[in-house]
Order: sequence, then structure tokens, then C-alpha cells
Amino acid sequence: MSKSGGKVGRFRSGCGCAGIDVHCHVVPSSFPPAPGRMPMAGWPSMTAVKDCHATVVIDDKPYRTVSDACWVAERRIEEMDRAGIAVQALSPMPELFGYWLVSGPAFDLVRHVNDVIAALVQEGQGRFVGLGGLPMQDLDLAIAELQRTMQIPGFCGVEIGSNINGVPIGDPRFHPLFAEAERLGAAVFVHAVRPAGMDRLVGPAPLQQVLAYPTDIGLAAASVITGGLLQKFPKLRIAFSHGGGTFAALLPRLEQGYHTFPVVRDSLPETPLAQARKLYVDALVFDTEMLKRIVSVFGEDRVMLGTDYPFNFREKEPVSRIEQTFADAGLRERLTFRNALAFLALEEET
Amino acid sequence: MSKSGGKVGRFRSGCGCAGIDVHCHVVPSSFPPAPGRMPMAGWPSMTAVKDCHATVVIDDKPYRTVSDACWVAERRIEEMDRAGIAVQALSPMPELFGYWLVSGPAFDLVRHVNDVIAALVQEGQGRFVGLGGLPMQDLDLAIAELQRTMQIPGFCGVEIGSNINGVPIGDPRFHPLFAEAERLGAAVFVHAVRPAGMDRLVGPAPLQQVLAYPTDIGLAAASVITGGLLQKFPKLRIAFSHGGGTFAALLPRLEQGYHTFPVVRDSLPETPLAQARKLYVDALVFDTEMLKRIVSVFGEDRVMLGTDYPFNFREKEPVSRIEQTFADAGLRERLTFRNALAFLALEEET
Repeated sequence: MSKSGGKVGRFRSGCGCAGIDVHCHVVPSSFPPAPGRMPMAGWPSMTAVKDCHATVVIDDKPYRTVSDACWVAERRIEEMDRAGIAVQALSPMPELFGYWLVSGPAFDLVRHVNDVIAALVQEGQGRFVGLGGLPMQDLDLAIAELQRTMQIPGFCGVEIGSNINGVPIGDPRFHPLFAEAERLGAAVFVHAVRPAGMDRLVGPAPLQQVLAYPTDIGLAAASVITGGLLQKFPKLRIAFSHGGGTFAALLPRLEQGYHTFPVVRDSLPETPLAQARKLYVDALVFDTEMLKRIVSVFGEDRVMLGTDYPFNFREKEPVSRIEQTFADAGLRERLTFRNALAFLALEEET
Repeated sequence: MSKSGGKVGRFRSGCGCAGIDVHCHVVPSSFPPAPGRMPMAGWPSMTAVKDCHATVVIDDKPYRTVSDACWVAERRIEEMDRAGIAVQALSPMPELFGYWLVSGPAFDLVRHVNDVIAALVQEGQGRFVGLGGLPMQDLDLAIAELQRTMQIPGFCGVEIGSNINGVPIGDPRFHPLFAEAERLGAAVFVHAVRPAGMDRLVGPAPLQQVLAYPTDIGLAAASVITGGLLQKFPKLRIAFSHGGGTFAALLPRLEQGYHTFPVVRDSLPETPLAQARKLYVDALVFDTEMLKRIVSVFGEDRVMLGTDYPFNFREKEPVSRIEQTFADAGLRERLTFRNALAFLALEEET
């Protein structure tokens, strides 16, 4: 097995239904108590499992009720077989990143979640690969955890937030982490978390996921472009959740701004349009026209199946969504699994 | 002349080049001193005009250097003739809304700007209509100014911010203003201002306009949908700047969220997709594919030519952008002027 994941069992190329899902999450069935025996703001706990469900509790409030598919390999595999998914790339539920905790306890929490992912990867016998969390509020610890997880069999990279306590991931302060990710060949999957724009929502709580998540991931992708991240780390493989959110809609105006404002143009070595084609995004846009649009913007080799499994607000028919949108067999293959093979640096089983 | 603007001189229907530009701004050539003789945070002043340009100064810092086309009717009309624009709907540069000022002085500032717009409308002899500003931080004053401006010949409605000091315009607290706008038949043009997401930008200052403006207007449009504004005021005509910004990209996920979360569905009497078709947007998206997308999302009768004239970051060939994007003559007419006639409640000159 290669450093970055290697071969994945049971994955067959050339099968239209053999999808790789780059966007799916893990929640452990339990959490250790907060260090120091005292309650700690932001530290998660789990209610007892009942009827295959449990509730993540944070700060004495229910954060999300989830099914045992979050932590039971067998349950996931049943549903993967039904949905035509050969391999899932497992990443933490973003609220478990713990960026808002003191870095020491956050490191403990992230390692706990990553160890649960590692156990699932092992149990899955080739059906899962890992994208671990990192304590990004402390870059030394984050780099240490990146190095540790990349030595775990089946780990292909990491999942990080669209912002770290409000700082977008295109900010130069995160360059040391990206330098190490590039050096190790670790895929970086960027997921919305604690998004901007919360004070602009009118309506019930799920609007955070519905509206503010795609907003924040769109701004994160833009920050990577305007911060010149891929000029600095040209071999970095970086993907954005939710089809890059609003980024594809921001891009034409960003391109126009590049050609209008000398101060924008001078800060970028390459046009935003050209840079956008170096990003990966998932296909989680719930819409045929949007899917066409992101393939047009990012390129046919840059969009990858992603579902948000096992949460309820997910793409339930990811393979047929792609098949309904595109007739070309080669393009379908690329979106269903081939682009994910490249992003995750996996080899096809022959 | 009807209450809401009436006939506009020199406007000929059926001429493909006779555009109505719903998105263009006015800056007065001078401002009165801040009330109370003391400097006031956020109060604008103007440097002396030199080489046809002057700089708006706010809080001792240059805010924007603008050309005299901001306040000279003749200069505007020359450029309108060149660009095939028959009528401009004049609105304040949004930084002049003054929402962040104490409401009394803000009222003074807004009335000054509206009076400058009124003078331009009169001078333009049918080439301009007015969309006045309102001191939205005080709804009683805002309603008073709405009533006053709607009695000025050539005023068709108002321009308001995407948020009022951080509160999105879909918030129910603004219902009294919208009730009055509906009653008076005033068009409401919503423009991005002091946007969300500023802390998510990496790069030079113009990224505020480039990235955060479309983000904020997208969230504002979403807030109107999730707040059910058009159920409450079904005859209200409301338009969003910058093609609705990111809203068209948020919409499929909002629609999916509507069908996934009972708490979202129960709060909305109609699907987000259906509601989106009741909004107007301008065509200021700088891109053929995006323009097609917003026409598809909002409807062929809902997209209107808009340029951000006279600022440098604007659409300089608005009519040919529409002609390059759509072949159908009827659709071209709708986007170039017919939808704006409906939004502004103007009659065609026959």
C-alpha cells in the first residue's frame, strides 16, 4: 500500500456504478470525558444509542441526532452497496474539529475521532479510506497529526474547515500546513464549518447548513485563489465541499475584478478562471443545472461524487444524478470515481 | 405622469438598443457639513473636483474617487447614447445610505442625496428616473422619506441596502416599510452594502465589492424567501443587484433543504424555487453562462439590464452582452427594457 492510501479493495474500474464518495462523515459512538474532569465549552458528548440513533450534545444542547451508520461499518456498507458506492472517504463531522477548544484538548478530541476513522477503515477491508481531522488552531500540532494519520493504512489526507475560528483557509498563516500536505501527498478536503453570514439568516436553525455553509465554502475557495495558494504549492490537491458552494457564482465577478482593479491583478500571478481549474470540488449541489455549471467552471477532471452520507440532508442518488446530467460515458466515469482516484491518489485495482 | 414615474421621454419601445439601466448610481458633487459643526463618524465629504474627478472622503480616508458623471446629467447622457441606454434609474452610491449614522443626521444626508437625484431627473428631461435612499435605521423616518420621494416627479421607488446595520432585509422588523412601498407602488431595488464575509477575504480592498457584495446580496435575497416577504406583500416589486449575487447558486440547496427539514418547509407557504420567480434581479453578472443561469432561475420576465454606471467596475457593453447571450428578439427586449418597465411601473411612450 502506498503512503497515500494505495489500492482499495473491491473497487473495480470500468463499472459505472462503482462510485467513490469523497464527502461522507463519521461520528464516534462515544467520546471520552473532557480533560480535567470539569465540563468544557464546546466538548461533545453522546446520549445513549436508542433505536439505532444517538444525539451529539455540545454545551448541554442537542447538536445533531445521528444514526449508527455514523460509526457502524456494516450499516454503511449495506447502504453503499444499495447506492452503488464502492468506496467512501471518511471524514469527521465538522463540528468535531474542535477549533474553538484549547489546543491541547482539541488535539485529544481530534485523535479520538481519527482513531475511530482508522478502526472503520480497517474494518471496511477496502471499502473506506480516511481523511482525518487536524487541530488547526495550533499548526505545530496540526502538522504532527497530519504526519501521524498519513502513516495509518488507508488514510489519504485530511479534512479541514473552510475557516479556522473565522480565518479563511487561504490566509498565508496556514502555509506551513499546506507545505507539509503537499510534501506528504495528502489530499486536503475543505468542508464548511462555523460559517460566515449567520447574522444574515432569517428562519430556522437548519439554514446554517442550507445557506451559510455554501456561502462560507465559496468564500474559502475564493480565499485560496486570491491568496495564491496553488502558486505556492502547485502539487497540492485541494477539494471543496458542496460543489465549492457559491464560488462558481462568484468567479465571473472575481475574473472581472481581476481585469478591472490593478491591485487585484498585481496580487495574482494567474487569472482566477485559470486558477479555478486547479481546485477539486464535490458534486453535492442537488441540481442538474448546477452540476453542469460546476463541471464547466472547474473542469471535467475536477468534480467528484460526494453525498454528505449518512446525514439526512444528503444526496441519496448520487450515481443517477450524474447519469441524468451527463450522457458521455467517459465523463460519467470521471465524476463517479476517476477524479476521486486522482484526488485521493488511489490506485485502481486491476 | 402616474404616481410611480409615468412616461419617460425619448424612450422608444421596439428598439433593441433602447435599454433601461436599473443599476446606476449618483454621488453629489458636494455634501453639507455634518450637523452640529463637529466631525461625525461616517459622514461624507468631497475633495475639490479636478480633471473631472473628485474623491469621497469618509472618516478622513478616501472612500472612492469618482468621475463627474456621478453628478453631471450631460456627461451621463453622452455615455448613455454611446452605450444604447435610453433611461437610467438613478440611485445613491450605497455608502451614502448612512445607516450607521444617528438617524437624524442620516435623514439629512439621505434627503440631500435624494434632492440631487431629483435635480438630475428634472435636468434629464425623461432620460432619468429616481430610486431614492431611505434612513432605514429609523422606519418612521424611512417611511416619511419614501412618501416624500414618491411625490417627486420621476421617482419610481427606492434603493435600500441588503442589510441594515447587519440585519438582512428579509427580517420581519422591516415589514412596515415594505407595506408602505407596496401601497404606494414603489419599486424596491436592493443593493449590497457593508457586506457579511469581510473577515473571510484574503487580498486587497476591492475584494469587498468583488466577493463580499454578491455574497451579501445573495443572503439578502434568501432572507426575503425564507422570511416569506412576498407572501405577506404579494404586489411588492423587489429587485436585487448583481444578478442576485450568490442567490441563484444557493437556491437548489435551499430547495433541497425545504424538502428535507420539516421546520424549513413549515415556515414557508411556497417552495423557494417558486418564490424565486417573484423576485427581480439585474443582469450585472459579467458572464454569458451566468446570465443564462439567472434567466433560467428567476424567469425571462425577471432579469433587467444593469451596469453599476458610472463606476469603473461596471458592465460597459450591457446591450451587446444580452445580444451575445440570447438570440430570441422577444427575450432580448424583455431583458433590455421591457422587464424594467414593469419593475419601475413606467409606461411606454407611444
